[in-house]
Amino acid sequence: MYHIDLNCDMGESFGAYRIGNDEAILSYITSANIACGFHAGDPATMRKTVQLALRHDVKIGAHPGLPDLQGFGRRNMAISAEEAYDLVVYQVGALQGFVQSEGGVMQHVKPHGAFYNMAAVNPNLARAIAEAVYRINPELYLVGLAGSHLITEAEKIGLRAKSEVFADRTYQQDGTLTPRSQEGALITNDEQAVQQVIRMIKEGKVLTRQGSDFAIQAETVCIHGDGEHALSFAREIRETLEKTGVEVKAMSL
Amino acid sequence: MYHIDLNCDMGESFGAYRIGNDEAILSYITSANIACGFHAGDPATMRKTVQLALRHDVKIGAHPGLPDLQGFGRRNMAISAEEAYDLVVYQVGALQGFVQSEGGVMQHVKPHGAFYNMAAVNPNLARAIAEAVYRINPELYLVGLAGSHLITEAEKIGLRAKSEVFADRTYQQDGTLTPRSQEGALITNDEQAVQQVIRMIKEGKVLTRQGSDFAIQAETVCIHGDGEHALSFAREIRETLEKTGVEVKAMSL
Amino acid sequence: MYHIDLNCDMGESFGAYRIGNDEAILSYITSANIACGFHAGDPATMRKTVQLALRHDVKIGAHPGLPDLQGFGRRNMAISAEEAYDLVVYQVGALQGFVQSEGGVMQHVKPHGAFYNMAAVNPNLARAIAEAVYRINPELYLVGLAGSHLITEAEKIGLRAKSEVFADRTYQQDGTLTPRSQEGALITNDEQAVQQVIRMIKEGKVLTRQGSDFAIQAETVCIHGDGEHALSFAREIRETLEKTGVEVKAMSL
Amino acid sequence: MYHIDLNCDMGESFGAYRIGNDEAILSYITSANIACGFHAGDPATMRKTVQLALRHDVKIGAHPGLPDLQGFGRRNMAISAEEAYDLVVYQVGALQGFVQSEGGVMQHVKPHGAFYNMAAVNPNLARAIAEAVYRINPELYLVGLAGSHLITEAEKIGLRAKSEVFADRTYQQDGTLTPRSQEGALITNDEQAVQQVIRMIKEGKVLTRQGSDFAIQAETVCIHGDGEHALSFAREIRETLEKTGVEVKAMSL
Repeated sequence: MYHIDLNCDMGESFGAYRIGNDEAILSYITSANIACGFHAGDPATMRKTVQLALRHDVKIGAHPGLPDLQGFGRRNMAISAEEAYDLVVYQVGALQGFVQSEGGVMQHVKPHGAFYNMAAVNPNLARAIAEAVYRINPELYLVGLAGSHLITEAEKIGLRAKSEVFADRTYQQDGTLTPRSQEGALITNDEQAVQQVIRMIKEGKVLTRQGSDFAIQAETVCIHGDGEHALSFAREIRETLEKTGVEVKAMSL
Repeated sequence: MYHIDLNCDMGESFGAYRIGNDEAILSYITSANIACGFHAGDPATMRKTVQLALRHDVKIGAHPGLPDLQGFGRRNMAISAEEAYDLVVYQVGALQGFVQSEGGVMQHVKPHGAFYNMAAVNPNLARAIAEAVYRINPELYLVGLAGSHLITEAEKIGLRAKSEVFADRTYQQDGTLTPRSQEGALITNDEQAVQQVIRMIKEGKVLTRQGSDFAIQAETVCIHGDGEHALSFAREIRETLEKTGVEVKAMSL
Repeated sequence: MYHIDLNCDMGESFGAYRIGNDEAILSYITSANIACGFHAGDPATMRKTVQLALRHDVKIGAHPGLPDLQGFGRRNMAISAEEAYDLVVYQVGALQGFVQSEGGVMQHVKPHGAFYNMAAVNPNLARAIAEAVYRINPELYLVGLAGSHLITEAEKIGLRAKSEVFADRTYQQDGTLTPRSQEGALITNDEQAVQQVIRMIKEGKVLTRQGSDFAIQAETVCIHGDGEHALSFAREIRETLEKTGVEVKAMSL
Repeated sequence: MYHIDLNCDMGESFGAYRIGNDEAILSYITSANIACGFHAGDPATMRKTVQLALRHDVKIGAHPGLPDLQGFGRRNMAISAEEAYDLVVYQVGALQGFVQSEGGVMQHVKPHGAFYNMAAVNPNLARAIAEAVYRINPELYLVGLAGSHLITEAEKIGLRAKSEVFADRTYQQDGTLTPRSQEGALITNDEQAVQQVIRMIKEGKVLTRQGSDFAIQAETVCIHGDGEHALSFAREIRETLEKTGVEVKAMSL
């Protein structure tokens, strides 16, 4: 039987600042990527988000980002592999503190934003991230862009990787995402977005912008958490997946 | 036989900024309190300091501070008990990431600067800190000012506390430290400082500024790490202690 | 003829985080207190808020806060008078950069949150803040709690102060605000809130919680900017003031 | 007669952290680039450094950097032109607060580290920086790498630029600095370093690594401030320049 994980970034509030609709989205997803205080999040938000995820029986992952709160971790920074390693150990450790003190278990790590994108195309960063995760706990999963260096570098060192796909983004003939700066980067039709995911899961293929198919492994789908539409899309994709015979369950189950 | 632990704050460098003489002081102490990135320290410094401590066979502790890098965690801040709890879980978790990934074991937690001082006199903060430590790992030790709320609150919840004393500070008749703002707060004579510690260890007493003795429990002595004199004093106190029949060993041994 | 200034805190967004309804509230107020990046705000937000205020012909003030983004500048910190001085010069200077480059003129400075509250009751901090403002530009106004040290210290050194009153807070018989932790601290009835302000303006008196009148000078009223109700209250107080013969105009006019 | 400006980065301490030897180096230079709190520096350090520069009659410039204290502003960040503009206005404004409150006048602006290097090769960033400086005060000078976009973009909009050269770095045949990662990037022989500067000043040429001469304009020389050797080199270059008929004076004189 087919199965898939649905993951969502959360715990992105900071102090008096609120972002996201964490509690509502937790009803539809199976894995939560919790911000760790560098690009978003703070200690109180981390604790509360861990508590929320546990209450909803959603698996917990760390979502480490670049040290750039003002840029929400979305601006590339020229960090070294060693710096990438240290950023991951620190942030995963910090979240682990809350998971442990709440009696939970951490399932995975997914780098955030520019950190994720940089590592996807840079094997040195990808390897450093994978090593950091492995050395903290070799049982953790590393979530990365399907087909990217994050996946291959993790597997090289014996760390379990999970390939992430996107419902609302189009792909290029080489399997990369169409950059947001280009026309046609986003899929705005919900049904089309869901069908793209179903085909990736069932056929292992995605139709690219250039008209050709590309082989892709879909193990977890990135669900957005902010805005009213995010919520209705999360509900829709989950329901449609289950109706078409795709079991929705956490990546580690 | 008498025994004592010698602890020192370290890992206080930040980015391009250097503070302390960590490698040298590690030859004389038995427990290292490593800054966790809020009042001092950064991910790279934390990793390197953990590695150094392991190499010198010095026990590792987390040294969480207030979120005030500019003030080096020395300025009191009106934080709630809940905020204190979260600050501890986050920072201890972050250091735990490095300890774990380096194959070490964390021994203790000692709050830093204003956080330590505030908790010493505020039972709500002290309890929140003790609970945070306990919930992360009930095997950890909490280091606090001898006779303070940090000690009593830890013991109330079943967390092992270790009473810290100071060699170079004088005490008041109520067992508190003479505030630095007052005359006679510091003991500048090294021999006198060492003798104060030896008496605390062997007799469980300290001669106060007012001329009376005060009963005090000495389980770990705070050693300073910065400056040339710090190093020579560390060597001297260690040698004198050992010569006078006080075994110097980590608090957990 | 009676007149009053209506001020509101704004420019409190930070990076991807949004707070406030700045553009809408600008239609009702006469002075904008713009956050300067320490407790809230960032360079881009500051520029945009200055541009907005100029477009709405609302006078611009700097709103310096404690260096505590996570606590939104609401947690007291034990800073020295010298640190207070430097915090003001830095933040007022930074905002001045945007005011100057947009061709505007700064009207006033109002400390934020815990910085405001601490200075209200601490003459050393109040004097340091007043001196900082005076040395940057003696033509600036300093806004402080009516009757507080911020007002008296400013006037001592020849800096023009403006006394701030609150519509939705009750007062104690000594002229201080009823602490939010106490019952009856807030006035939730809009009409009552507006009438309190009108009486302060026209009679120079406020009815205290204890039933007695207290003499108070009302030169500027603090208007809240967040939430739907804030907007309707701003409109209501402005309309009622104008209907009852109180001219609403900037403090410097 | 030939003349040259000697500039040095300073005010790079932060809180309890000390970097540099500002007071000593001020005896040899004519322009001080003062860090503004983003890559280094803090409000207290900025005030003290402004006071020191005024006391030594050294001209003051702002030294804005990327928002990366941990990386000391040395890591490239993918910022937009608009973000570059805002970073400059904010930081120049903040320093201007201290200059103004101390009764001084700001002479110039020199971007720091990665910000300087990125702008040197990116005309959009260079233009944004130049515009920010111009809009704050069109009388300010902008210091940039000789021959770089910082110089040409400043001149395009009518801002006065000053071309900076390096004594201890070698040049490539296209006039760029040999990257530090390459062999032969640094000139470690002091006399050779001074002679390179003298030739740049007197002949307007520099001998490149490839053996050819490159035409270069030398209006200000970057002097390092940290370490014992920095101080002796500063003294040596100043004395040698003056002995060989090059007047050492601030760029604005």
